[in-house]
Amino acid sequence: MENKKIAIIGSGIAGASAAVYLKRAGVDFSLFEAKATGGQLLFVEQVDNYIGLPLGMKGRELAQAIDNTLAQLKIDIVSEQIDSIKPLKDKVELVYSNKVYEYSGVIVATGASYKTLNADGESRLSGRGVSYCAICDGFFYRNKTVAVVGGGNTAVEDAIYLSGIAQKVYLIHRRDSLRAMDYIQKELFAKTNIEILYDTVVDSINGENIVESLTIKNVKNNSARNIAVNGIFIAVGVAPSTSLVKDIVKFDESGFILTDEEMQTSSELIWACGDCRKRPLRQLITAAAEGAIAAIAAYKKVKGLYISA
Amino acid sequence: MENKKIAIIGSGIAGASAAVYLKRAGVDFSLFEAKATGGQLLFVEQVDNYIGLPLGMKGRELAQAIDNTLAQLKIDIVSEQIDSIKPLKDKVELVYSNKVYEYSGVIVATGASYKTLNADGESRLSGRGVSYCAICDGFFYRNKTVAVVGGGNTAVEDAIYLSGIAQKVYLIHRRDSLRAMDYIQKELFAKTNIEILYDTVVDSINGENIVESLTIKNVKNNSARNIAVNGIFIAVGVAPSTSLVKDIVKFDESGFILTDEEMQTSSELIWACGDCRKRPLRQLITAAAEGAIAAIAAYKKVKGLYISA
Repeated sequence: MENKKIAIIGSGIAGASAAVYLKRAGVDFSLFEAKATGGQLLFVEQVDNYIGLPLGMKGRELAQAIDNTLAQLKIDIVSEQIDSIKPLKDKVELVYSNKVYEYSGVIVATGASYKTLNADGESRLSGRGVSYCAICDGFFYRNKTVAVVGGGNTAVEDAIYLSGIAQKVYLIHRRDSLRAMDYIQKELFAKTNIEILYDTVVDSINGENIVESLTIKNVKNNSARNIAVNGIFIAVGVAPSTSLVKDIVKFDESGFILTDEEMQTSSELIWACGDCRKRPLRQLITAAAEGAIAAIAAYKKVKGLYISA
Repeated sequence: MENKKIAIIGSGIAGASAAVYLKRAGVDFSLFEAKATGGQLLFVEQVDNYIGLPLGMKGRELAQAIDNTLAQLKIDIVSEQIDSIKPLKDKVELVYSNKVYEYSGVIVATGASYKTLNADGESRLSGRGVSYCAICDGFFYRNKTVAVVGGGNTAVEDAIYLSGIAQKVYLIHRRDSLRAMDYIQKELFAKTNIEILYDTVVDSINGENIVESLTIKNVKNNSARNIAVNGIFIAVGVAPSTSLVKDIVKFDESGFILTDEEMQTSSELIWACGDCRKRPLRQLITAAAEGAIAAIAAYKKVKGLYISA
């Protein structure tokens, strides 16, 4: 194969980590990102569970650190939106800017986005008491009061997780029963510091610079009231950004890309890493590791050999 | 189960990452380390492929950063050598200080050690031109001259990997033929900047503060000579530290612990992460991610529920 170039799509932490590994391996590659480097990271207030970084580091500081690393390693970001991907026998065609380009392999690191409530104050206070990840941010609410919104497995598990940290947890669900699996609900009902508010939606998230309260509404009688909270965890779903590989690779039932442990998808020259991939733990540190694994796997495939390290 | 305590054995980056996740989950646990925090990291000169950290960070600086994080989170390290582990039906017994203690689960993060040559200068110049990981340190030798020692798959793959970065690569092997698989050898022989020195051993690694040359000896005729190199990669094997779980969990043929993607071993209440585990890529970033995954998996098991995040 003449053209050894690999394409990385997405410069969130997974794509950036892949880029660092490919660069250091001396492999020719392009890193595509139509938006800003850092991906979801830009919406993270504080990163306190990424071992090695100082506690209290802001999400945007980490995004800046990643930008610096890419610049220092002379890794350019190609600001192009990839329009389509087409895997052939021994190469992958990428279409962008109305042209077709050939690559030896593609690493998909397109991320995901959390579904939002579209409540007043939600985007303004995102990262300031509004969170979409209990494992990421729960620790900041030790002995405080938080609300979780949702009725599925994630929401109920988040409420249970937070009940071990916060003093009081509200679980707010718009229907009159939960969708979570029975045995998880059983665990939920055993917690004395969780109060479940059924038939309830969040109308607004209030606070000047940080979340102070929620205005909630009972959908059956339309009565509204305020509850004081220090934080709100929105767990109404995650949407992986995978339209580029639709009909090309295999997905799980929630739309996440399936890979093997080396991040290879069901398509031989396409790897996936980070939030777009089905994985046991959705965290920055796992996305970074997956980017490294995908990079070395793609390198091995393109070079036609097995590197053990 | 009354006692919810989890034991983490080893405070390298995998064990430390697990500790951070358990702490933030509000789980009671003990972090055991008989030596210094940081594990193998203490022998790493420079960490340049851990996305988020500044380029040029020293291994010992990262070890210090991890120590600081543990101290700030009030995670104490128990300086005890675990003597034995015994999994029972719903708990695991740990023996140390001549007493038996009960834990709900155990995370094994005991690491591995690289096999050494025991050549003169090897330990003195470790991290100063002597390296045990081509993917970690190869990048520092762009357009320079390096040697790889060994004749197995890893050594040959390292030589090929380095041939894409360095100007010249010596592959030094004590026998008259390589042990690596045929197709890898074929790839090796195709590289014009790799010189293979058969029947050769390294007598000494020379240089005041940094590697400058090697004294090598032909074992057939005992003739010695010096070759100038900027770095030497020793690839004569890795020994996982797994004696604690011998006869308890399943291993691969090289002695690494086998786990599923949530880091669970073949023993229900024992997880493994980092260098002691069979994994696709042996790197700091993957060890850190595995620690996080193991922690949340152990937390879920002990709490009896599934957390998705």
